Amino acid sequence: MKLGSLKSNQSLDGELVIVSRDLKTFARAKHIAPSLREAVEKWSSVEGELKKISDQLNAGQFAAAEKITDEKVFHSCLPRTWLFADGSAFIHHIRLVRKARNAEPPETLLTVPLMYQAESGRFLAPTEDIPQVDISHGTDFEGEVGVILDHVPMGVTAEQALKYIRLFVILNDVSLRGLIPAELAGGFGFFQSKPAKALCPFAVTADELGEAWKDGRIHLPLDVQLNGQFFGKANAKEMHFHFGQLIAHAAKTRDLVAGTLIGSGTISNEDPAMGSSCLAEKRTLEQINNGKIETPFMKPGDTVSMEMKNTKGESIFGRIFQKVVKV
Amino acid sequence: MKLGSLKSNQSLDGELVIVSRDLKTFARAKHIAPSLREAVEKWSSVEGELKKISDQLNAGQFAAAEKITDEKVFHSCLPRTWLFADGSAFIHHIRLVRKARNAEPPETLLTVPLMYQAESGRFLAPTEDIPQVDISHGTDFEGEVGVILDHVPMGVTAEQALKYIRLFVILNDVSLRGLIPAELAGGFGFFQSKPAKALCPFAVTADELGEAWKDGRIHLPLDVQLNGQFFGKANAKEMHFHFGQLIAHAAKTRDLVAGTLIGSGTISNEDPAMGSSCLAEKRTLEQINNGKIETPFMKPGDTVSMEMKNTKGESIFGRIFQKVVKV
Repeated sequence: MKLGSLKSNQSLDGELVIVSRDLKTFARAKHIAPSLREAVEKWSSVEGELKKISDQLNAGQFAAAEKITDEKVFHSCLPRTWLFADGSAFIHHIRLVRKARNAEPPETLLTVPLMYQAESGRFLAPTEDIPQVDISHGTDFEGEVGVILDHVPMGVTAEQALKYIRLFVILNDVSLRGLIPAELAGGFGFFQSKPAKALCPFAVTADELGEAWKDGRIHLPLDVQLNGQFFGKANAKEMHFHFGQLIAHAAKTRDLVAGTLIGSGTISNEDPAMGSSCLAEKRTLEQINNGKIETPFMKPGDTVSMEMKNTKGESIFGRIFQKVVKV
Repeated sequence: MKLGSLKSNQSLDGELVIVSRDLKTFARAKHIAPSLREAVEKWSSVEGELKKISDQLNAGQFAAAEKITDEKVFHSCLPRTWLFADGSAFIHHIRLVRKARNAEPPETLLTVPLMYQAESGRFLAPTEDIPQVDISHGTDFEGEVGVILDHVPMGVTAEQALKYIRLFVILNDVSLRGLIPAELAGGFGFFQSKPAKALCPFAVTADELGEAWKDGRIHLPLDVQLNGQFFGKANAKEMHFHFGQLIAHAAKTRDLVAGTLIGSGTISNEDPAMGSSCLAEKRTLEQINNGKIETPFMKPGDTVSMEMKNTKGESIFGRIFQKVVKV
């Protein structure tokens, strides 16, 4: 099942729709739940109804199906939520970005996930411009995978935690590299350096991933393009910590409310042929390999796109496509 | 005007009520907005109606007024919201807690506010137990003042920012001191060490503070009691950064959505006669003055209460009263 949110003048939560597997048609579902946020909050009572329409839609038998002709009608699949706990589960990424700012990885690198709480009160739409206040902020993208949870009780184990995953997403964790060193030096972690992010247009249930969802990880590459050119196709299967471990970490001292989003951190592979999912990594590799950085951070007019396809080459989550604009 | 939220089986946002200035009666207001969160999201269109009932209530002329007989019917005034950006605006507190963990304050201590994003998807009710997973976590309270905002545009100045404040609160920012050093050493700031917090039962508009609200600061002491005994009465006027500065810091690279909560950080005064608003400070002072720490962190059964009174001795926000329980 694939779910999305139409942009709405009525609600900042958007309007819930069910989307066909091929992303060509959708069915309105606000009679089942007004928004995806509210659907997740009462998942067990709405899942069956949503699934029924989804099956009809995929069979071409849903009479009120509407054609998707403009991706801009869709907001981020979950336009806003209560908690976004963003992990950093790809060790290769941590090593590279720490090297870039001459910082040591923590001693617990391989045993305790790094995690921070990120902006979730307003996600950018998947095709919404990325505002740039100042070019010195070093605007970067970060391609990630994420999961949306049902209510998770405090103290859940990593294995139990996987049972609370309801939906999967990809996302662009916009990062302002120029602001990170000073902010982290203060000791309180990221805030200004991690502004509003964009989620993909469609959130999907596990069955849409099929065998690619195993061991708590999504075994598929994320296609990332910068200005229409190949930038990366790193496979999300190389997560060191799987999603159950990230959820258990987040839930150690609190319940996680329904709708919580857990992010993987920037997808990153050891194999350099896979490219990167953020500019910071590419710049660090240039510094290491060539002795100088050649790739700048994003400037106004630059675009980034992110998409994940299944083994048949079909888009799973729809496309994130964003342009940087000066504000 | 004073606003609160009845606990509700219908909504995690609670049910909006208007409370009389003397905290003795309340009026249901769900016909104006279902919840305080939703009222803040359309403040300009509901403020007048709420104010009208508030005036009637305070004049003893609201026919459907209900008596307040049990503080436990109230949730935190805002049971959940999209963003809680918690500053640390009392420099004395920063210096003391950093000393306690042998960490240096940042070089920008006096010029750039420290701020982190905190749990806001589910606040504890004002009289809800504080769960303790393990005594080694070092359960502490932190007494703070906070402001609830209308939508704030990115890039707002500190002076402009004050205009977006709609409501004032006090809160208990529960902190797990035993988890902080390892977490901060990782470089990503607080997460597990900052679990669910409690807000006061009633949020109030600026007129309820009268002359105590000036220069972007609340000029009143916060009464803090531990196990029914005096613990602190530090005055919130000693904020180094005022609320406009904290808001401007938070809004530097993002819009702040309506309902955003900005916290002051632990209220702390230079004068030791004012006591403290958290255990960590008292412990550090004991170490400095007596060479050894005598006050333990909270154990199951310990209680903390917080209340702020106006110059006539009347409670402004109602009372936070919480007990630690082992879970």
